[in-house]
Amino acid sequence: MGLIVQKYGGTSVGSAERIRAVAERVLAANRQGHKVVVVVSAMGDTTDTLISLARQVTNDPDEREMDLLLSTGEIISCTLLAMALRSLGQEAVSFTGAQAGIRTDGIHSRARIVAIDPARIIRELKRDRVAIVAGFQGVTDEHDITTLGRGGSDTTAVALAARLDAETCEIYTDVDGVFTADPRLVPEARKLDRISYDEMLELAQQGAKVMHPRAVELGAVHEIPIVVRSSFNDRQGTLICGGEGMEASNKVRGIAHDVDIAKITVIGVPDEPGAAATVFEPLAEAHISVDTIVQNASLDGTTDLSFTVSEGDLAKAVRLVEPVAARVRARGVANATGLAKVSIVGTGIQHAPGYAARMFRALAGEGINIDIITTSEIRITCLVAREHLPAAVGALHRAFELERAEKQAITSS
Amino acid sequence: MGLIVQKYGGTSVGSAERIRAVAERVLAANRQGHKVVVVVSAMGDTTDTLISLARQVTNDPDEREMDLLLSTGEIISCTLLAMALRSLGQEAVSFTGAQAGIRTDGIHSRARIVAIDPARIIRELKRDRVAIVAGFQGVTDEHDITTLGRGGSDTTAVALAARLDAETCEIYTDVDGVFTADPRLVPEARKLDRISYDEMLELAQQGAKVMHPRAVELGAVHEIPIVVRSSFNDRQGTLICGGEGMEASNKVRGIAHDVDIAKITVIGVPDEPGAAATVFEPLAEAHISVDTIVQNASLDGTTDLSFTVSEGDLAKAVRLVEPVAARVRARGVANATGLAKVSIVGTGIQHAPGYAARMFRALAGEGINIDIITTSEIRITCLVAREHLPAAVGALHRAFELERAEKQAITSS
Repeated sequence: MGLIVQKYGGTSVGSAERIRAVAERVLAANRQGHKVVVVVSAMGDTTDTLISLARQVTNDPDEREMDLLLSTGEIISCTLLAMALRSLGQEAVSFTGAQAGIRTDGIHSRARIVAIDPARIIRELKRDRVAIVAGFQGVTDEHDITTLGRGGSDTTAVALAARLDAETCEIYTDVDGVFTADPRLVPEARKLDRISYDEMLELAQQGAKVMHPRAVELGAVHEIPIVVRSSFNDRQGTLICGGEGMEASNKVRGIAHDVDIAKITVIGVPDEPGAAATVFEPLAEAHISVDTIVQNASLDGTTDLSFTVSEGDLAKAVRLVEPVAARVRARGVANATGLAKVSIVGTGIQHAPGYAARMFRALAGEGINIDIITTSEIRITCLVAREHLPAAVGALHRAFELERAEKQAITSS
Repeated sequence: MGLIVQKYGGTSVGSAERIRAVAERVLAANRQGHKVVVVVSAMGDTTDTLISLARQVTNDPDEREMDLLLSTGEIISCTLLAMALRSLGQEAVSFTGAQAGIRTDGIHSRARIVAIDPARIIRELKRDRVAIVAGFQGVTDEHDITTLGRGGSDTTAVALAARLDAETCEIYTDVDGVFTADPRLVPEARKLDRISYDEMLELAQQGAKVMHPRAVELGAVHEIPIVVRSSFNDRQGTLICGGEGMEASNKVRGIAHDVDIAKITVIGVPDEPGAAATVFEPLAEAHISVDTIVQNASLDGTTDLSFTVSEGDLAKAVRLVEPVAARVRARGVANATGLAKVSIVGTGIQHAPGYAARMFRALAGEGINIDIITTSEIRITCLVAREHLPAAVGALHRAFELERAEKQAITSS
C-alpha cells in the first residue's frame, strides 16, 4: 500500500483527548500498511487567541510578525500529536512548515507555495516514522515564516499529497462530508458519496465551508483523490475526484450559500475601453478579493458596474473605488449590505434546458426578489436579501429533488 | 554609541501592557543612539501551560517534540514585542532562534550553543531596525529545534552580546539587582552596585536565582559587562564585571541559599582507585547534575562518599547508584531530603583568616547543626536542615555585616 496524507482541522485536534483520538486513527492507517503524512491545524480557538493577543498589543499588527506569531498554533498541535503517537509506540516526528520544506513567496498572510522540498519527510517515512507537518505555513528564501491564508492547512495537505505522489488525501473535519446543502438550513440535506473537482470547486467558491477552493483546485490540477470525512466517527465521507462519469448526469449536485457579501455599484460608467480596468486595479493592488462582477450592456452610453466583496473589505473597497470612479467620470458609487448569495451547482446544467428557469421560479414561489444573476459552466448564482436565505436554500433543495438518493448517477460513473 | 543586548524575562513581558512598557524601554535605548538587540523569554506562565498540555497528552513526552513545543512560547513574545515597537514607529523584526543563527548541539532540552551566525541580525541592525530574538532556543545542523535548558534566555543574551561584540548585556527582571541575600529571608539585604564574575558565578551556583551560572560564565569568558536590573522601575541595578579591584576587599559579598537539595551517601566504599568514577559514571550518562561531592579520608580502608542532587533527580539517582554501589562492594546507600544549602561568597575569603570560623560560630549561635561543609576559592558552603535556613541566612548576614554599605570596597575598585 502507498502513502496517504491526512489533514486534521482545528476541532479534530481541539483538546488533549481529541489529539489522542486522532493518534489512534493515524496509527490504524499506519498498521494497515500505509506510509502516513499528517497535516494539522491549530487546536480549536488557538489562532483566535493569538490574534486577540496581538490586538491587545497594537491595533495594526505587522503582517510579517503576525505570520510568525500565528505559525506557533500549528506547531503546538503537531508536536502534541507526535507525542501522542510516540506514547502509543509509533515513532513520529513533527515538522514546522519550514522544516517540512514548504517554500512560499513572500506575501505575508496569504502566501503561495512555490515549491516543496520533501527530502526530510521522505527520510523519516523510510525509517517507518509518521511525519507530522504544521499546516498553514511555509518559509521564504530569506527564511521568513509565512502563512497561507484561509484554507491554508487544506492547501498544505493537498500540496504535500501532490509532491509525495500520495494515493489519496484525507481531509478530516467535524462534518461527515460534502452535503447537498448546509444541513443547518436544510434538514433533509443529503451527504454526497462523490463529487467532481469542478463541482466541489464551485460549491466551495460559492460558500460551502467544508473545503477551501484553493485546495480543491490544487487537487484537480494534480489529480489527487480527496476524501472529506469526519474525525468523530467512521462514516464513509465524500470522495472528490475526476468526474467524467458524472458529467452525463446533468443534475444539480448541491446548493451553496454565502452570507459574507457586500455589493458595490459604480453608477453611470461611460462606455469606454479601460473603464473597468481602472476601477479594479486599485482593489487588486490592495489584495481585496472581488467576487461576482456584473456589467450590463450599455444603452445610453453609460453602464452600471456591480461587484461583490466580503463585508470586512467593504469600507476599504469603497474608499479605493470612489476616487477612480470620479476619474472615469462615473455618476457615483453606491453600496449595499444585508445580502446573501445562493448557487446551484452541477456539471452540464448550463447547457441543459430549464435549470435556470426552474431556479428563478422556485425563488419567485417564495416571494424572493433576485438582485443579481451570474452563471458559470456548471453553476447559477443569485444574489438575494439575507433574510430570505433559509427559504431560498430550502426551496431550491426541494425544486431540484436533492433529498433523493442519486443511485443512477453513481452507478453510471 | 555601540550595540547593547537587552534580555527581558517572563514577568517583564507577562502581559500586553507589560510588552508595551518594554517596547518603550527598548525605544529609549534606541533613541539614545544604541543599536539594540533584544532577547525575550516566554510570557509569564506560557511555558508551564505548554508543559501541562503535553502532560495531558502523554506522561512521557518525547524531548525533541517537547523542545519544538516549548520554543513557541518565546516566539509568541518576540513577535508581540516587534509589533509593539512598530506601533511606536520603530522598525523591528523578530527572529526565532533558528532565524537568528543560534546553532546548537543536538542534546534536546539542554542544548549547548556551538556557534552563532549573526548575518541576518547585523543586516537588520544596519537598516536601523531593532532585532528581537526568541531566547532559550536554537537549531541543530539537521534543522531540528532545541532548547537550552534552565537559564536559557540569559545564555542566549550573553552569547549574542559576545558574538556581536556588544558594549553591555542588560538582564531585565522583576528584582532590582543582585542582593547580599534573598530579601524575602533577610529584610535588611542590600542591593550590590557591582560584583565580580567569579563571585556572581558562585552565588548563582549556590542558589541565587537572579541569573543562571551558565550565562555568568559565558560573560566572564568573553568579558561582557552584564547589568542585572528591574524592568519595572529605573533603578540602577547591579553591574557584573571583571573584579581585579575588588579582590583586595577580602570581604563576604553575599549569601546564597538553595532548598532544592537531596543528599545521597554511599556508605563504606572500599578505598580503591576507580571507586568514585564507577559511582558517578551512570549519573553522568543519565545527565543527572551532581552538585556538592564530599569524601572524607579513609581510616579503616573504607570511606563514605556523599553528594547532592536536585530533589527531582533523587529517585532516579538512587536507582542508578544502588547497583554500582554493590559492584564496588560498598556497604549500602542512604539518602536524605529536607535539607538546604547556605553559602558565603567573596573573593579571597578562603585565604583570609577567620571567615570559616566566623561562619560556623554564627550557625552554632542559632543552634544549627552543620551536615556537610565544602569550600572553593571564594566560597564556604554548609548543608543544614531546611527548617533552619531562614535563621541561618539571617545570622550570617548579621555576622558579616552585610547590611552596611561597602563604600570603601567600591571606591578602591
